[in-house]
Amino acid sequence: MTPQLLAGKRGVIFGALDDQSIAWQIADVCAEMGAKFTLTNAPVAMRFGTISELAEKHGCEVIPADATSIEDMENLFQKSEEILGGKLDFVCHAIGMSLNVRKGRPYTDIKHEWMLKTFDISAVSFHKMCQVLFKGDHMADHGSILGLTYIASQRTFPDYSEMAESKALLESFARSFGYHFGEKNGVRVNTVSQSPTMTTAGKGVKGFKEFFGYADKMSPLGNAPARDCANYCATLFSDYTRFVTMQNLFHDGGFSNMGMSPKLIEQTADEE
Amino acid sequence: MTPQLLAGKRGVIFGALDDQSIAWQIADVCAEMGAKFTLTNAPVAMRFGTISELAEKHGCEVIPADATSIEDMENLFQKSEEILGGKLDFVCHAIGMSLNVRKGRPYTDIKHEWMLKTFDISAVSFHKMCQVLFKGDHMADHGSILGLTYIASQRTFPDYSEMAESKALLESFARSFGYHFGEKNGVRVNTVSQSPTMTTAGKGVKGFKEFFGYADKMSPLGNAPARDCANYCATLFSDYTRFVTMQNLFHDGGFSNMGMSPKLIEQTADEE
Amino acid sequence: MTPQLLAGKRGVIFGALDDQSIAWQIADVCAEMGAKFTLTNAPVAMRFGTISELAEKHGCEVIPADATSIEDMENLFQKSEEILGGKLDFVCHAIGMSLNVRKGRPYTDIKHEWMLKTFDISAVSFHKMCQVLFKGDHMADHGSILGLTYIASQRTFPDYSEMAESKALLESFARSFGYHFGEKNGVRVNTVSQSPTMTTAGKGVKGFKEFFGYADKMSPLGNAPARDCANYCATLFSDYTRFVTMQNLFHDGGFSNMGMSPKLIEQTADEE
Amino acid sequence: MTPQLLAGKRGVIFGALDDQSIAWQIADVCAEMGAKFTLTNAPVAMRFGTISELAEKHGCEVIPADATSIEDMENLFQKSEEILGGKLDFVCHAIGMSLNVRKGRPYTDIKHEWMLKTFDISAVSFHKMCQVLFKGDHMADHGSILGLTYIASQRTFPDYSEMAESKALLESFARSFGYHFGEKNGVRVNTVSQSPTMTTAGKGVKGFKEFFGYADKMSPLGNAPARDCANYCATLFSDYTRFVTMQNLFHDGGFSNMGMSPKLIEQTADEE
Repeated sequence: MTPQLLAGKRGVIFGALDDQSIAWQIADVCAEMGAKFTLTNAPVAMRFGTISELAEKHGCEVIPADATSIEDMENLFQKSEEILGGKLDFVCHAIGMSLNVRKGRPYTDIKHEWMLKTFDISAVSFHKMCQVLFKGDHMADHGSILGLTYIASQRTFPDYSEMAESKALLESFARSFGYHFGEKNGVRVNTVSQSPTMTTAGKGVKGFKEFFGYADKMSPLGNAPARDCANYCATLFSDYTRFVTMQNLFHDGGFSNMGMSPKLIEQTADEE
Repeated sequence: MTPQLLAGKRGVIFGALDDQSIAWQIADVCAEMGAKFTLTNAPVAMRFGTISELAEKHGCEVIPADATSIEDMENLFQKSEEILGGKLDFVCHAIGMSLNVRKGRPYTDIKHEWMLKTFDISAVSFHKMCQVLFKGDHMADHGSILGLTYIASQRTFPDYSEMAESKALLESFARSFGYHFGEKNGVRVNTVSQSPTMTTAGKGVKGFKEFFGYADKMSPLGNAPARDCANYCATLFSDYTRFVTMQNLFHDGGFSNMGMSPKLIEQTADEE
Repeated sequence: MTPQLLAGKRGVIFGALDDQSIAWQIADVCAEMGAKFTLTNAPVAMRFGTISELAEKHGCEVIPADATSIEDMENLFQKSEEILGGKLDFVCHAIGMSLNVRKGRPYTDIKHEWMLKTFDISAVSFHKMCQVLFKGDHMADHGSILGLTYIASQRTFPDYSEMAESKALLESFARSFGYHFGEKNGVRVNTVSQSPTMTTAGKGVKGFKEFFGYADKMSPLGNAPARDCANYCATLFSDYTRFVTMQNLFHDGGFSNMGMSPKLIEQTADEE
Repeated sequence: MTPQLLAGKRGVIFGALDDQSIAWQIADVCAEMGAKFTLTNAPVAMRFGTISELAEKHGCEVIPADATSIEDMENLFQKSEEILGGKLDFVCHAIGMSLNVRKGRPYTDIKHEWMLKTFDISAVSFHKMCQVLFKGDHMADHGSILGLTYIASQRTFPDYSEMAESKALLESFARSFGYHFGEKNGVRVNTVSQSPTMTTAGKGVKGFKEFFGYADKMSPLGNAPARDCANYCATLFSDYTRFVTMQNLFHDGGFSNMGMSPKLIEQTADEE
């Protein structure tokens, strides 16, 4: 039986679209480890996905919410506290969407209103979420807030486009709120920087498959699967990581600290 | 006589408000080192400051421009090329302003429309500037683009508030465009992360003086003066740093790599 | 009851001197979580400490070993496999000692033979340990190797002297072996960068108490206690962190990502 | 004419073997920029190389010195002061050699006495050099000390073997002495992390050519040539970078901040 690492913990999980979402896996793992939680996603994402199946499976409620709306966030966390019967021990933010990428604009020909909208959805939503949690005093002491991010925040992966900046923003918000929440009531705020993952969103991106293969070869353990990411997040929600805060934590099979892999060198050598 | 490190170079310098601005010092140093340049600032900043004195001193033109306006950027760089007689060798972005800080909103009670406006002025302006330079082919081969930043992008200085995120964005834009400009025509893009500086803007911030003193003690060389920052920027505009790109370069007397200074420990020890 | 996160896992724990050692706490936590392990320390450290009490408490064996001796390492891991009945799932290295600090030599007047001896004990021992584990095929697939380190490897804390370099070495060895072990059989290698801790070794150092207080104020969660460090290490030995490798993981209450804390600024402000 | 950036400066340059050495290029650039200097190398390296030609070209003296010998370092700096007529403004350390690599031992089967010898030659020599400069008060106020390093100190390039750890040590020594020299008399200590370079030493390494090509494609500006590295070092010796200290500065065409390059992805994609 799975160790009951999260026995009695209450949480809110954002961003489960379908069973290939990391957030979906997180919900599965949290349930197995003894946690209770509510699920949330944007109304539009709920129509495209299958979140209600996940809710049924775990007997939990779905609260639709637009993460860019303060009002929706307030409603989400108030209702979640009522439903779960107490303050929140963990909150997981897994939201990201780029308008310019979706509409095929290259990085050197961005439409800047779309960029600001991308930031609002993918990163400022994290600040809004934290602010509502902070002002509404929704987090239990020593709770844990997590955002999912990607290494493009720190190094350049040209195809990731304005999502690089979105993730740089997200990671900075996590550090900043890590300070404020830590001083307030010992709540931790971190980001997990995950390998490229074969989600429904990911698979749709042109060139993703090639990039996935590249990262897989570069990483000594290979790309980290979504299920393992969920396991890792669960350790970060638990009481066994209580002094880890303001960190960006790589869950990537070692990719981030590889300079180059001999396997790739062979392939890139020019033939003569 | 000052070495003519920038003999014949053409540039555009943003953000000189008055003679305490880093951008003002940069203009002075560039002139001494043999460069020609235009100056620019937002119309509103021009009214409050004394940029026309600087222009007179160096016999150069001021082109008012709102850095958040693509049209203004296009006009700025077209006119600058005409005035200077050729493509640009260097461009220096030194712009930042936080609406929430100015209006006294704490970080945990941000007004998010203001935050997005702050990002637009302080960081997206850098992307807009680069995009206009890129699409208009305004940069000479091996040119140099620079943004001024602050270490709060990477570690938490709570009073810096949403400017932390603005600078995280700015640094990410510089990396991203460093790739695109490098591949295009060997142009470098970097940020300089400067010590806290006693500018007119800085001095107005509550608690700045105390913080300035703290950073000064923490840094083995003390806080870096604005004039020295200008010298450093000049080396980065020159041909002697042609392979430095996509970097965030600390000009801070060592602050960034100090864990703690014995001088500060003594002061913070509780008395018994 | 503690979740059985390490049920059936086999390990070797270095460096438990007395009940204030982090390694001692790690042994306690691993035992509670269902692991079996052997303990080891240098013969000289065993005389000064109370490791046999720890062994009795958990019904495990102590195998004396000088971590700088390849032969001792070979004996340690062979015996441990025999005693525990299989390959190792986790190994924890918590060893460090500076001859120049102990003998009061300032960093600018180091005796370099002592420095090399310090490196051999505090860092090369980690390479030797990994090499013996690697060549002897002692690690189970997906096992976990951990070293304890300190942030002085990355930023300057002048009183830490040559231990800064020892920890820089240690962290580099962990990255390098993370590659080799990952490719070999999915074994992870990481370092945990822990807050200053009130161990018997730590307390003896001049000025340590003042520094401990400084770090405690700088960290939003305060300094991380040894017991919590042990909890964190246990999560890294478990199957729930299988794709985390080649990382230096801060367990420090947020210290590493704080630029400055308003609490300290107040204290360091010069009075007028 | 080259700007006289180093007019009147006095320096010591280590490690010029032949005209493909970075140190050789540094000497050429420093001479063109108006500096006076002495050259030094190990007696054995002097026999294999052509340093006397370089000395003749610039009318300067060569002082043979084993960088692992305190006595040789003392002699070197005393003589250099006498010859140059004053305290030193810059010192450049460009020394590295791995016994285990040279003798073909793989990283997982290292001979540890050789490793310690490698560290002594490639990194502890930097500490010894700094200590002799510090105790002998050989550095002029605001002088500049530089070491050449490689990014393998921070990320894993498996073929670089124990030189990764040597460079991690070197960079840590630079930070540590940056503090002590900064507080003493405003002297800066930095490392420059250079692209792979086609030196005589480099070319001899198996697989170097392939790796050089890989890095060249990954870097938006391509690999940085030795001559440009020399230019960059010259800016760091000058008075125009006086507040840059304790930094590791990448001179690498952008390699360090690239996550992946589309050019390489294409080549590594599996064919179908």
